[in-house]
Amino acid sequence: MSAIEAVESDFDTLLRKQAQFINYVLKQLLSSRQINDHLKEAMSYTLFAPGKRIRSALVLWCCEVVSKPSAGINRNAQIAAAAIEMVHTYSLIHDDLPAIDNDDLRRGLPTCHKAFDEATAILTGDALLTLAFEILAKEIDDPAIAARLISELAEAAGPSGMVAGQMADLKAEGNTGNEEIVQYIHLNKTAKMFRCAAAMGAICGGAGKKEYECLCEYGLKLGLGFQIADDILDVTGSSEQLGKTAGKDARAAKCTYPAVVGMKKAKELERRLTDEALAALKPFDKKADILCQLAMALTERTK
Amino acid sequence: MSAIEAVESDFDTLLRKQAQFINYVLKQLLSSRQINDHLKEAMSYTLFAPGKRIRSALVLWCCEVVSKPSAGINRNAQIAAAAIEMVHTYSLIHDDLPAIDNDDLRRGLPTCHKAFDEATAILTGDALLTLAFEILAKEIDDPAIAARLISELAEAAGPSGMVAGQMADLKAEGNTGNEEIVQYIHLNKTAKMFRCAAAMGAICGGAGKKEYECLCEYGLKLGLGFQIADDILDVTGSSEQLGKTAGKDARAAKCTYPAVVGMKKAKELERRLTDEALAALKPFDKKADILCQLAMALTERTK
Repeated sequence: MSAIEAVESDFDTLLRKQAQFINYVLKQLLSSRQINDHLKEAMSYTLFAPGKRIRSALVLWCCEVVSKPSAGINRNAQIAAAAIEMVHTYSLIHDDLPAIDNDDLRRGLPTCHKAFDEATAILTGDALLTLAFEILAKEIDDPAIAARLISELAEAAGPSGMVAGQMADLKAEGNTGNEEIVQYIHLNKTAKMFRCAAAMGAICGGAGKKEYECLCEYGLKLGLGFQIADDILDVTGSSEQLGKTAGKDARAAKCTYPAVVGMKKAKELERRLTDEALAALKPFDKKADILCQLAMALTERTK
Repeated sequence: MSAIEAVESDFDTLLRKQAQFINYVLKQLLSSRQINDHLKEAMSYTLFAPGKRIRSALVLWCCEVVSKPSAGINRNAQIAAAAIEMVHTYSLIHDDLPAIDNDDLRRGLPTCHKAFDEATAILTGDALLTLAFEILAKEIDDPAIAARLISELAEAAGPSGMVAGQMADLKAEGNTGNEEIVQYIHLNKTAKMFRCAAAMGAICGGAGKKEYECLCEYGLKLGLGFQIADDILDVTGSSEQLGKTAGKDARAAKCTYPAVVGMKKAKELERRLTDEALAALKPFDKKADILCQLAMALTERTK
């Protein structure tokens, strides 16, 4: 094993451990609530399908970066990480619906509306979105922090963020897109949620204004790069590798970077965004090693 | 005009004025945000279709009942009232979708997915739900109050409340329902949101524990009665009167009180719930006149 491979493998193990840990937190949060049985089954089905849990890792690691070395377990960051995974999962369930992206495969399993039915999938998405705000309001120990986290998450996920991106993505389908449109889509559909994950981690860790801003910048650039990588993988990857249907963007004539600026320029842009994400971490020096590794891993990912 | 008609007419005017006022607050809140144009159009379409605005009136009036006579305009209650109307409207948009209740008519207009398309309707519901939490987190002046309001709203609307009720409602369709099932549906689908409106008003007005509990009890009983009245009207009313498709419950073999216990017993139960709602207001004496009138008006409504 080369030194680079060893680092990568260590990082993969770390990311997998974080994912397991967040699954444990999510299970605790779900099981402590009186939820309609059928809904709980459908919520768990998509929530616990094997996901990379990048957004929750971002929350936890950004929190660590700004916390004192002696700081113990940060329960608020765990709740925030669980909340963003709930919101991310809701967005996948709704995006996969027949009326939106009409996808059959997600996280290597039949999509929620395929495994259950459309009505269940719509309501399951609604349930996860609402529950995310409930746990932030109920489980965060300081209401001032809770209000800030909810404000960040709602703004990133709502009609000034992710939902707007999804709407624009649908509207752009089949049209001759341009770089401005694809930028709008990526910024709103993906990057604002990555920025939000970083912001929530920073808030939970008690970041100062400057630290908060650097982590937000890192999250935003990471998210933009991640979405370009996703678009590239949709062209170059297989469904088996991705755990979701490959080649769908081209078939649906989606407005993506490879489609609008070509594959070569898309790859260049992805690398530039990774560099910009890394540059935003400079003030943290070695403390942000794990976040640097995350940025590198996302650039080189194959799924 | 008889004395009773005069009181009713005064009350109707008051309710209409509150509705106009909440529309103004909603318009302010929407226009102060950077929202995707197409989404904003669809959000406004259903949000500003003529609704009775009972839930927001409940918030504002419950706040008044517990406030000091000298208390001025309560901005927090206005925000809470706007938030609950957004959540209510989202629930109507999603419930009307082809995969759920498949309805063409709402508030006297074509449903959101008919006026736009299914994808837009799904995303518009998502947007309104998320925006409700955003405005509570951002616009309420005290984070402790914001966290309490968000906690109430998310619990009432989510998988331990409204979404669970909707799921159970769908599951019960076509089955031989029983009183226990219809109780579960009504409690979760409707009554918890009425209770939540009363609770939010109480919190904004600075209610003590006892006052809060009385208003929650009032809201819950009012909501249960309201849903029975709704089921009765679905049988006895016309689509023109109701602004939504009449007779749908029977055609879809929905689990309702008239279907399960018969019309006579359903009407008796509705009256008993109104009496219980009124009884919960006793401690407030004359201060709660407007809430008494609301309970009476809902019992006797024809739309």
